[in-house]
Amino acid sequence: MNTLHVNLGDRSYPIHIGAGVLNRPELVANHVSGSQVCIVTNETVAPLYLEKTRALFRNHACDTVVLPDGERFKTLDTLNLVFDALLGKRHSRQTTLVALGGGVVGDITGFAAACYQRGVNYLQIPTTLLAQVDSSVGGKTGVNHALGKNMVGAFHQPVCVLADTDTLNTLEDRELSAGLAEIIKYGLIRDMEFFRWLEDNMEKLSARDPQALAYAIERSCRNKAEVVAADEKEGGVRATLNFGHTFGHAIETGTGYHTWLHGEGVGVGMLMAADMSKRMGWLTSEDVHRIDSLIDRAQLPTRGPADLDTDRFIGLMGVDKKVLNGKIRLVLLHGLGNAVVTADFDPALLRATIDEHHALRAQRGPGL
Amino acid sequence: MNTLHVNLGDRSYPIHIGAGVLNRPELVANHVSGSQVCIVTNETVAPLYLEKTRALFRNHACDTVVLPDGERFKTLDTLNLVFDALLGKRHSRQTTLVALGGGVVGDITGFAAACYQRGVNYLQIPTTLLAQVDSSVGGKTGVNHALGKNMVGAFHQPVCVLADTDTLNTLEDRELSAGLAEIIKYGLIRDMEFFRWLEDNMEKLSARDPQALAYAIERSCRNKAEVVAADEKEGGVRATLNFGHTFGHAIETGTGYHTWLHGEGVGVGMLMAADMSKRMGWLTSEDVHRIDSLIDRAQLPTRGPADLDTDRFIGLMGVDKKVLNGKIRLVLLHGLGNAVVTADFDPALLRATIDEHHALRAQRGPGL
Repeated sequence: MNTLHVNLGDRSYPIHIGAGVLNRPELVANHVSGSQVCIVTNETVAPLYLEKTRALFRNHACDTVVLPDGERFKTLDTLNLVFDALLGKRHSRQTTLVALGGGVVGDITGFAAACYQRGVNYLQIPTTLLAQVDSSVGGKTGVNHALGKNMVGAFHQPVCVLADTDTLNTLEDRELSAGLAEIIKYGLIRDMEFFRWLEDNMEKLSARDPQALAYAIERSCRNKAEVVAADEKEGGVRATLNFGHTFGHAIETGTGYHTWLHGEGVGVGMLMAADMSKRMGWLTSEDVHRIDSLIDRAQLPTRGPADLDTDRFIGLMGVDKKVLNGKIRLVLLHGLGNAVVTADFDPALLRATIDEHHALRAQRGPGL
Repeated sequence: MNTLHVNLGDRSYPIHIGAGVLNRPELVANHVSGSQVCIVTNETVAPLYLEKTRALFRNHACDTVVLPDGERFKTLDTLNLVFDALLGKRHSRQTTLVALGGGVVGDITGFAAACYQRGVNYLQIPTTLLAQVDSSVGGKTGVNHALGKNMVGAFHQPVCVLADTDTLNTLEDRELSAGLAEIIKYGLIRDMEFFRWLEDNMEKLSARDPQALAYAIERSCRNKAEVVAADEKEGGVRATLNFGHTFGHAIETGTGYHTWLHGEGVGVGMLMAADMSKRMGWLTSEDVHRIDSLIDRAQLPTRGPADLDTDRFIGLMGVDKKVLNGKIRLVLLHGLGNAVVTADFDPALLRATIDEHHALRAQRGPGL
């Protein structure tokens, strides 16, 4: 087991990473201050890990909320199911929520913890690769709105994170790939040594080699923790963590959150952002090819949905938290390993990037 | 005009109090950083003050959301109407929300500002006496849940508050009295000099004497600001601001939020808390009589609803943010002007207090 500390002053917390951390009650004991615990999970994860998780809290009054599974349920209505349970069971301000599941469960549970009685503690047990490398670090919580992804939420840090690599054994291949997209992102935006390691080890990750996974998770979390420690509320550098996300969110929102996984949208989004960076003169064709190749080897789609035309795509990109004074701001690469945030680009280049993507889809056939 | 500063470090803000402050754009100019503004108000206040408020922001792109009026609409669903408007009109993270109305509008708008894109600025223009002396200070925002009042929310401070005493001229008598309940509270919990001033000037306040109102508002806000500056997140002394509220919330929740105004619940709640304090040996009969008399002179009800029996009443009191380890904590008076928070009381005394209240209702007739 490795332990990484996210340094955020009085909101600092540990992330324990490794096989079997979910079997160690001593890791959470100091982080549950009251007598009540409420585990929030979903109908897919509950049969797999709920019993084991309840065992972590056998000395507490432990309630459970089982949510429906899927990004399309990341809504205010689902959030209210958590409040129903907490109030129905009379959880006080000293309660601790436990998010057991992927990014959706983590985001909803974290937001519920931010708002319940104006703020209670929560603990993260991410069970997908994406959640382990992304949503478990940094305290971004929230839900989607029909008009935009993650538009309603709060910054609220967990008190502890348990990332048990054993839970990845039950993950579908597609979910594993989605997590790899975010891992590749950390290499691209700020850690070329890691990017090269990924180029050497992608097949080990796809084959779920436990050592390789543990290394990639820790290095990803370390990268994210450094960025978040420097800019908790996203006033500046934290926005670079959104590399690929403005394009990706447009895909997710445009397809109604139920066909594309978040990581799949980010994978294609990174390719589009790389293409745009090349048009800005900031990446070479060879750079773009390396990115495309690595994303392909991660068994991620490399083309967006066929039914999103360019105008609609640009419209969806305009609903983004990085929009400033009505201008879309993009995270682009100024060379591999060096992300920058900019609103200073020719809109024609953005249009050409999206058009090109359409042409590619027509050539290779729609839907992939 | 008087200006009071609430001192909360980098979240400090001014409260401008007086007749006509709503006609002075220079008071808000420095507090609106972006180009977009969204005024949130309700269908009662909009015809009275929306035009005047829009004029404050004539140099900004200004949208409006008009909510239904009433505590029963202080819900997640109504909150979502604000998000619908913000996203529909593409408000960015740099937008400023403006709460124009009473406590309900202020709480919903503040919570929307806390959550929209994980946090944007907001400005308060309270138009009821209760909002001017209570919800405009301290940054408590949120909505109700069917199972408990103010159970979902956030701490989020406004950037500026305009309390225009002219807006009180359009207030119904009943709403004015509801505000007087909170004003009396500040005297009772920590400011006996103010309590005596209220005993001398209650009729002036009921008659809406502008000078008397401005004085009472400023002194109330000053009291609240001192408490909040000492304990922003309610770890300790801030809980004393809830004097009368645990009883009052039980009345509001038990009657479905649509017959009792918040201030009316607090008025009766303060009498019940005073009665309980007397049973603890902490107040004299004479003390309780002074409180009862002042509340009566403020034209507030002095008896709770007839249809809430004692068991139900106690059950409702258990859904309270002050509950600690399953025990109800009460704010009581240890002498006039000195509030304390305690869970150390004989439950039989609480039951006797509520029973007595029933006996009084039977004697005086139900419904008042």
